[in-house]
Amino acid sequence: MSGDRTLVSRVLDTRRKTSRLSEPLSAEDLVVQSMPDASPTKWHLAHTTWFFERFVLKPLGIAPVDASYDYLFNSYYEAVGKRHPRNKRGLLTRPPLEEVLAYRTAVDARIADLEGSSRLAEVAFALELGKHHEEQHQELILTDIKHLLGCNPLLPAYRPGRPADHASHASPPTAALGWRSFGEGVAAIGARGEGFAFDNERPRHKVYLAPFSMATRLVTCGEYLAFMADRGYERPELWLSEGWAWVQATGKGAPLYWEMENAKAPRIFTLHGEQALVPSEPICHVTYFEADAYARWAGARLPTEAEWEVAAEQSLEARYGPPERRPMAIKEGNFVEDGRLHPAPASTSSKTSGELMQMLGDVWEWTSSAYLPYPGFAPLAGAFGEYNGKFMINQMVLRGGSCATPRDHVRTTYRNFFPTNAEWQFSGIRLARDE
Amino acid sequence: MSGDRTLVSRVLDTRRKTSRLSEPLSAEDLVVQSMPDASPTKWHLAHTTWFFERFVLKPLGIAPVDASYDYLFNSYYEAVGKRHPRNKRGLLTRPPLEEVLAYRTAVDARIADLEGSSRLAEVAFALELGKHHEEQHQELILTDIKHLLGCNPLLPAYRPGRPADHASHASPPTAALGWRSFGEGVAAIGARGEGFAFDNERPRHKVYLAPFSMATRLVTCGEYLAFMADRGYERPELWLSEGWAWVQATGKGAPLYWEMENAKAPRIFTLHGEQALVPSEPICHVTYFEADAYARWAGARLPTEAEWEVAAEQSLEARYGPPERRPMAIKEGNFVEDGRLHPAPASTSSKTSGELMQMLGDVWEWTSSAYLPYPGFAPLAGAFGEYNGKFMINQMVLRGGSCATPRDHVRTTYRNFFPTNAEWQFSGIRLARDE
Amino acid sequence: MSGDRTLVSRVLDTRRKTSRLSEPLSAEDLVVQSMPDASPTKWHLAHTTWFFERFVLKPLGIAPVDASYDYLFNSYYEAVGKRHPRNKRGLLTRPPLEEVLAYRTAVDARIADLEGSSRLAEVAFALELGKHHEEQHQELILTDIKHLLGCNPLLPAYRPGRPADHASHASPPTAALGWRSFGEGVAAIGARGEGFAFDNERPRHKVYLAPFSMATRLVTCGEYLAFMADRGYERPELWLSEGWAWVQATGKGAPLYWEMENAKAPRIFTLHGEQALVPSEPICHVTYFEADAYARWAGARLPTEAEWEVAAEQSLEARYGPPERRPMAIKEGNFVEDGRLHPAPASTSSKTSGELMQMLGDVWEWTSSAYLPYPGFAPLAGAFGEYNGKFMINQMVLRGGSCATPRDHVRTTYRNFFPTNAEWQFSGIRLARDE
Amino acid sequence: MSGDRTLVSRVLDTRRKTSRLSEPLSAEDLVVQSMPDASPTKWHLAHTTWFFERFVLKPLGIAPVDASYDYLFNSYYEAVGKRHPRNKRGLLTRPPLEEVLAYRTAVDARIADLEGSSRLAEVAFALELGKHHEEQHQELILTDIKHLLGCNPLLPAYRPGRPADHASHASPPTAALGWRSFGEGVAAIGARGEGFAFDNERPRHKVYLAPFSMATRLVTCGEYLAFMADRGYERPELWLSEGWAWVQATGKGAPLYWEMENAKAPRIFTLHGEQALVPSEPICHVTYFEADAYARWAGARLPTEAEWEVAAEQSLEARYGPPERRPMAIKEGNFVEDGRLHPAPASTSSKTSGELMQMLGDVWEWTSSAYLPYPGFAPLAGAFGEYNGKFMINQMVLRGGSCATPRDHVRTTYRNFFPTNAEWQFSGIRLARDE
Repeated sequence: MSGDRTLVSRVLDTRRKTSRLSEPLSAEDLVVQSMPDASPTKWHLAHTTWFFERFVLKPLGIAPVDASYDYLFNSYYEAVGKRHPRNKRGLLTRPPLEEVLAYRTAVDARIADLEGSSRLAEVAFALELGKHHEEQHQELILTDIKHLLGCNPLLPAYRPGRPADHASHASPPTAALGWRSFGEGVAAIGARGEGFAFDNERPRHKVYLAPFSMATRLVTCGEYLAFMADRGYERPELWLSEGWAWVQATGKGAPLYWEMENAKAPRIFTLHGEQALVPSEPICHVTYFEADAYARWAGARLPTEAEWEVAAEQSLEARYGPPERRPMAIKEGNFVEDGRLHPAPASTSSKTSGELMQMLGDVWEWTSSAYLPYPGFAPLAGAFGEYNGKFMINQMVLRGGSCATPRDHVRTTYRNFFPTNAEWQFSGIRLARDE
Repeated sequence: MSGDRTLVSRVLDTRRKTSRLSEPLSAEDLVVQSMPDASPTKWHLAHTTWFFERFVLKPLGIAPVDASYDYLFNSYYEAVGKRHPRNKRGLLTRPPLEEVLAYRTAVDARIADLEGSSRLAEVAFALELGKHHEEQHQELILTDIKHLLGCNPLLPAYRPGRPADHASHASPPTAALGWRSFGEGVAAIGARGEGFAFDNERPRHKVYLAPFSMATRLVTCGEYLAFMADRGYERPELWLSEGWAWVQATGKGAPLYWEMENAKAPRIFTLHGEQALVPSEPICHVTYFEADAYARWAGARLPTEAEWEVAAEQSLEARYGPPERRPMAIKEGNFVEDGRLHPAPASTSSKTSGELMQMLGDVWEWTSSAYLPYPGFAPLAGAFGEYNGKFMINQMVLRGGSCATPRDHVRTTYRNFFPTNAEWQFSGIRLARDE
Repeated sequence: MSGDRTLVSRVLDTRRKTSRLSEPLSAEDLVVQSMPDASPTKWHLAHTTWFFERFVLKPLGIAPVDASYDYLFNSYYEAVGKRHPRNKRGLLTRPPLEEVLAYRTAVDARIADLEGSSRLAEVAFALELGKHHEEQHQELILTDIKHLLGCNPLLPAYRPGRPADHASHASPPTAALGWRSFGEGVAAIGARGEGFAFDNERPRHKVYLAPFSMATRLVTCGEYLAFMADRGYERPELWLSEGWAWVQATGKGAPLYWEMENAKAPRIFTLHGEQALVPSEPICHVTYFEADAYARWAGARLPTEAEWEVAAEQSLEARYGPPERRPMAIKEGNFVEDGRLHPAPASTSSKTSGELMQMLGDVWEWTSSAYLPYPGFAPLAGAFGEYNGKFMINQMVLRGGSCATPRDHVRTTYRNFFPTNAEWQFSGIRLARDE
Repeated sequence: MSGDRTLVSRVLDTRRKTSRLSEPLSAEDLVVQSMPDASPTKWHLAHTTWFFERFVLKPLGIAPVDASYDYLFNSYYEAVGKRHPRNKRGLLTRPPLEEVLAYRTAVDARIADLEGSSRLAEVAFALELGKHHEEQHQELILTDIKHLLGCNPLLPAYRPGRPADHASHASPPTAALGWRSFGEGVAAIGARGEGFAFDNERPRHKVYLAPFSMATRLVTCGEYLAFMADRGYERPELWLSEGWAWVQATGKGAPLYWEMENAKAPRIFTLHGEQALVPSEPICHVTYFEADAYARWAGARLPTEAEWEVAAEQSLEARYGPPERRPMAIKEGNFVEDGRLHPAPASTSSKTSGELMQMLGDVWEWTSSAYLPYPGFAPLAGAFGEYNGKFMINQMVLRGGSCATPRDHVRTTYRNFFPTNAEWQFSGIRLARDE
């Protein structure tokens, strides 16, 4: 449990995991940027390091490893100074990988030196934030490298070989789709006082919810195939106007990473390479437009983020008791630590019937809520205020974490957010409907 | 009062007003499209006519005036068929203006024939919708022609001469900015059962509101000048990230239609031509980005649409009693019928102190709410379902109507919506803050 | 003959013809701009007037009709000052048409006043240049309005009704394609000293030509259909690399203004409206890319401009004697004065066999020569130096004039020029080959 | 001399030089693409290998090393099949560098096996072409890596340290600018029958030249600084219209790789890193637009390619006798073998006065000739026909080779070609003028 470990050791532990994620990759893989939205792994390795250097070590008066890194590895903090343009991160063949790795080592050593320091308290929050920031980039390393490898005609695997549990079933059965009802009333959502949460999860506040029900599992690839077979991509009445324009402009007819050349045997690119599509696996890498169109076709809708959070909370509470008596570590779900790196079919065991499955892990679930400040939202002071608040426009909220998220990282109150046409994240669909 | 007039006569009345709006303009002015978002006046005249022909007359088996118009003047109804591309409406020099005016006359005659018809009930809703649709285009005629004339280096006036009441004061005083408080609790917003409302205003539903206060008047040009003088357009910390990118990409340093060549004597383009900027007039033609940045600079925020609606309702109720006993016609405010065609300074009379002023008319007020379906929203059946629902993404809600809106058209529950970078509408700023 | 008339009267005569061209059009037709490369007719009417005002009247100290016109109606003369952006000419609904027509009348009156003036000589060259400039815009009025009307789904005719001589033959026969040989040697091309010519036609200079032969007539629509039937638009080996990229990007499969919906009965949009394609008519509105690809498919090539000029000169000389003894007015060909406004089939009379037909008029003939300065080229002094010289890059030369060119305007030494993807001019194909 | 060595050994020798060029670079440097026009070094290494495999080994029935390479490493040969998009070459992190190097080794071994083969004659031309093709890519490796490193804020050197001869003079003197006259007449240009030449250099043919003179040396950085100081980038009258538009759109105020932050001490990025600008060094990395504007400012013009070739030939003949008695190896000039990798100041020794200096090597010299087929040009048969011919449009010819060109590669008849806005090649300026 996190409480047993010191902050410094937890940070260093997280840092080691980041480095480990880059191990299956060559220096060539690490340097290339496949599109403006994605960053090279090497840049992720350096930027997360810069974050500690800039916000933890510098305030303590510790000199930087290399003065040029402040320009090269700042992501978007206007308050901190000018920076290398985001869409040119892939041009940074220098500093070379070894230098970036040495940078990590040097900064880690300085962080380790803080253990027991009298000034630790001054930077404790920045250290904690840096750890969670590092975890976010762990997920981005996986989504970004998946995009890069997926652009390569050779379709190379990030980690070759299918996970053991997967190999046993060529195509596991699909769990029945159930619905769980929730009553109307005023509920509270948002992070409670105790424990780490991003500023965008606060303050906890009241919302009024009409009665609704929530699907017990995620939408599957098989169900999405039925939508496609029903000409889902050809019927404007199923789409938002902007979504329909996106379909026309891109010529889309299937989700990202799907290969439909042989329509009877669709294939799908994963971090383990290209594989036969498994109908019971959750649909993944869909845009908001696709999630919304699918829901309309299915006669349902996407949940709001408040509905999602209330449902997730009640579900956990029923099983494990109220949050204050619940160990934080209890998080069922398919996370990055499971090594599957791909969403998994919902369980078909009888005891799960009626229970909400796959709420955490597997795929980020698009909600119908725009990413906006909570009532009373106050951004963090200083440069940290740019962390979340300035992106609160023209994006939609996703909830629940994915198979590429560190288990420790996500919470039921966690708000992820992406523009409506983003598709390279592990983003999927859970249905809701009015009662 | 509308109840005294038949539906048909109200429709024809509204139609006449549309034609009247085009009278100060030449055939040349009427045909040109200044940007993809704006349409030529002639197209507005024809499209609104097509709306009645397609949705009222056709279902009754009445043959169209010209078969080609179905393609030329459909705006965006996918269910109805293919259509002329939106960004090419300005290429339609044919049919000529006289033919479009004859089209209006012919369709009006057929609508008039419906009076007393046994089949009127079948199309009553479409007629009513057509009337409100026509009113929306009345406003767009003004905003679109303003944009076209504003692109012309000669800066010609749509209607020359300043309104009489305005000429008397070179620069009227600015009303003091007050704040009115509203308590927390569950409130209901959205259109009640009786009376016309668009589908996007329904269903009426409950929301939870934390305590808040609302500014008693709109933000003025003078206040906005102070924001500019404080380097408002140069400080990234005041802007949303996407707004800052918009400032950088466009080089913006003042609102649309402002001429700052002589910074000490700013000028402003209006439908009456270019005039000296009046500090007490409400700021207008700002994007969401600018409204949001201004609010942050002012230490406040934009209201949510629920806050706005609750405040507007309570304000009206205090003055005129509950909605069911209130004549619909009671709408104070500066509307298109006032002929000013520009927002007016708030009253400085002592009896208004503490009261919410300018809630209706003057300028559409940006809210901090994304334009999304209300809980339980159901689009209208058939092609009318495309009227509002399919645009519910990546836009923000504006409330209250403007100086270009027909008085009859707007309601406290009315939801207007535009993308965050739209600036050619009469869009302004009202501040709110947490209590 | 021009020699019999005064310069002033010739100018005014030319000016009247310009006005006449706009007569079949409404004010609406005159104001709209269909693409950045094309200008509204009203703008052409004003700009040609401005040319005389700026370069003839102003040097004589005559005050301008309206000071704002200098900004509005300058086309591209940097030396003269700032100007309204080219791609926004279509936004100028003001000044209204009547004002532009009054502008023409006022300037014409001032030009008329120059007759007999002692200062006429000072501006004689500018007057002469203004006349030729006016003629160029006469052709542009026709090509630009054709483009605008061709964008309209109604496909309205500029001048309704087919010309009389055309109506008699639904489909006249195609003349046999002959080849005429020309020997090698040093020849001279370019304008001789006497008579008006643009600076880009000078100086006359020597070129060495290898033996070549020239097709006796233009390529026909029927021949081009054979190219299309042979999958001409689908075979990269027929195209320049940039031409192939243009085909891919535009999805082109037929020339501009062709309607192939019914492949067996192709239709073609003309200034007389849409009509059945006539196989014996010259192909028209092709880009350089298409002309070049067709020639390659036909086992031939395009002529160089030197070859074209030498062939045209020898051809004229054989018929009418050397240039110095040849009346300038002898110009056979289908020009704007013929009223056909569309290229005509080559004559099939036996006496033309072996003769070069259609060298002047009908269509501008793409040559394989880049538009570059002749050896010893010197641009005119002052602002007139911008007339031609600054465009000498990345364009190809066309020769011979078209059915939209004033007969008086073109010469065998005349160099027209357009980018390789221009298609809205009356541009066609004549083949050449090495001997 | 090449005659002493076998074709196979000459090919393998050239191949080794290519590999050597990549040695100072890391795998990271080799994989990245800095812009669509430039390719990653790894791609160059693979593509040149593919060229031999596809055009030499495949016709002999030798199986490919890896079937996927045909798709990955084809550049633009439509006749050979589909290929990886040019602008995505930088996404190919796989195959890894080692595999590409192994590919080179494998293909080299197979080429070596051809020595003494009875079938060598069948592929001798393809082998020879492959060698010259390989040399072209050697130059591109240098220009492309220079562009990539120049995009990096760290400005890393390709090869650190300044060449010895250079270090001795901080700033060597500038040779006087002389002019050499050439008389008028018919001359022949183009490749003679013997020896290798690209198809675009043939056939040798006659041209007529008016008298002209040619500058004895290249334009220097110091002279170009004077052009800049005279507001060269701010005066539209100096520029072609399209060039002026390019200046406006890009905001250009100095050549590529110039750093003018301290205007009194300009710096310049070279393959040896950033250095102080040396005024006597030839100006380099200018576009055609800049070369043309500079020449106009200097009261001169660019030479035609025929003038350049005649001048170069006469110059060589005067020194070394007629081409048939001249060893091919006699090529004075600063080529890639000299290791300078940057243009060098012209000699100031008295014996060079009046002689044409720097005609070969240093920088490619923009000519005023469009890149078009010579009279009688016939592209090579089959896929080789795509090598040059299909690019003959909208590009200008450059002559003479550069400091990045292999000495063996260039000829006086050699035609290089780039679009008018290309600046990443070693392209400079030599002036000419009419006599």
